[in-house]
Amino acid sequence: MPNLIDGNKISEEIHAELSEKLANISGRKPCVALIRVGDDPASVSYVAKKSKVAAKIGIESRLNILPETTTQSELDALIDKLNSDDGVDAILVQAPLPKHLNEQATFNRVAASKDVDGFSFSNLGKLCQENKTAFVACTPAGIIELIKRSGVETKGKKAVVIGRSLIVGKPLALLLMQKGIDATVTVCHSKSENLKEICKEADILIAAVGRPLTVTEDMVKEGACVIDVGINRIPCAEKKSGYRLVGDVDFENVASKCSFITPVPGGVGPMTVAMLMSNTVKSFLLKQDKH
Amino acid sequence: MPNLIDGNKISEEIHAELSEKLANISGRKPCVALIRVGDDPASVSYVAKKSKVAAKIGIESRLNILPETTTQSELDALIDKLNSDDGVDAILVQAPLPKHLNEQATFNRVAASKDVDGFSFSNLGKLCQENKTAFVACTPAGIIELIKRSGVETKGKKAVVIGRSLIVGKPLALLLMQKGIDATVTVCHSKSENLKEICKEADILIAAVGRPLTVTEDMVKEGACVIDVGINRIPCAEKKSGYRLVGDVDFENVASKCSFITPVPGGVGPMTVAMLMSNTVKSFLLKQDKH
Repeated sequence: MPNLIDGNKISEEIHAELSEKLANISGRKPCVALIRVGDDPASVSYVAKKSKVAAKIGIESRLNILPETTTQSELDALIDKLNSDDGVDAILVQAPLPKHLNEQATFNRVAASKDVDGFSFSNLGKLCQENKTAFVACTPAGIIELIKRSGVETKGKKAVVIGRSLIVGKPLALLLMQKGIDATVTVCHSKSENLKEICKEADILIAAVGRPLTVTEDMVKEGACVIDVGINRIPCAEKKSGYRLVGDVDFENVASKCSFITPVPGGVGPMTVAMLMSNTVKSFLLKQDKH
Repeated sequence: MPNLIDGNKISEEIHAELSEKLANISGRKPCVALIRVGDDPASVSYVAKKSKVAAKIGIESRLNILPETTTQSELDALIDKLNSDDGVDAILVQAPLPKHLNEQATFNRVAASKDVDGFSFSNLGKLCQENKTAFVACTPAGIIELIKRSGVETKGKKAVVIGRSLIVGKPLALLLMQKGIDATVTVCHSKSENLKEICKEADILIAAVGRPLTVTEDMVKEGACVIDVGINRIPCAEKKSGYRLVGDVDFENVASKCSFITPVPGGVGPMTVAMLMSNTVKSFLLKQDKH
């Protein structure tokens, strides 16, 4: 049977490490400003979770809730205000934004030094440059932590990422090929031919597709490490909510072939929150260094 | 026999297209500022070539030659002056810089809107975001032109890049996986295990290693397209200069297996200059649009 990579446990470890780091610092706490536009139920739940974890660690969170009808210039004005607020170390704009707002322009408007989501071109470019002051997008950064803390070997190994998004696939590929991690990285996507054969060669297979049951048993090499980034809701009559969460991987049939595998929920998900906290503390400490 | 991809011919086509674009524009010419520090013979020759091609196309080039002993702050001061000079559309700092200067900091100092080399974090990040206003590094951009103009199919095909540098490997991988190009991209490097087997599966194989004869006949699939980015000098008694230029690919033994292959010299090299010109014209035209 595979080793289950317990994202809840590893994220708790990270929270504890961050708390400990902050315990030795006097003066004000780190502060993250959370921006939510509209009332998308998943966004409501994510933002609430982030506030709760922040409080536990000793990070102040300031919640900014804007109505669904917010215009781009109103959102920009809020970001500008937070950018120039010395009491705010970190800004997170919860995605997805309502369709009439430009997500990329919004991410780029956040000051690079507070962009703890790592989606601005400045931080993406610094990631390319392997600059240690870059804020790395939380989900890819969390995946790297899961891999490292589970003792999965990466050097020279074949890592296959399914998905080329700006949020996961591209930054994750850049991280996996960095010096010190040193994986041979392949990025596949919806246009890739022979997806099954390519995945089957992966020592580390990462699914970031957003479609249930995309990775099936015949796509996985015996002994591979499988990381499932997907969080999909599928109908489930037995659940009170009427749905249950599944990943992109057919966990039930894939797990027995793997050396390591992440469950959904409880795998990558909690790590995304942990890395947001880690980036907020990093931003806070970088600022302290400057003073 | 393979189709030889003639970089000289394709770069001439691009020069002609750029000349034609500029012929219809009145007022001042586009202007590129070239900065060379010291007298590295290869740099002297590259910068001279760039000036010559610029003149032919109708681009003004201003040559700034600094002594080998130039300090970082002197170089920064020159870049700052050129950044704020409205008559300068484009700035190129010829690499490699003398060892006492910080190349990455220098590249990042060039204003994003004039960084036609595409090495600053701003342009690298915009490339990640698939932003059309990004300046893409000249060698990777030139490779994409060679592939497109030769009619090599990329969609869904396996592209393998050997080399993970900031100058070639990483931006090239980001370009190849972009929407519209749609290759399945693998990046290999010095730590990769089973390099031979991985290369052997490539429909498009790109060598950017900087070591002669790295890609041998047994690493290439029958019918592959092979792009050779290497420019290595090896001793040659028959040449007056005492050396000859070879790529990273064992051309003599590899060529007969390929559908397409680039020679060295005369493959990727001239494209790098052509794309510098193309980026300079792009910068000039983007500015015109704003006025």
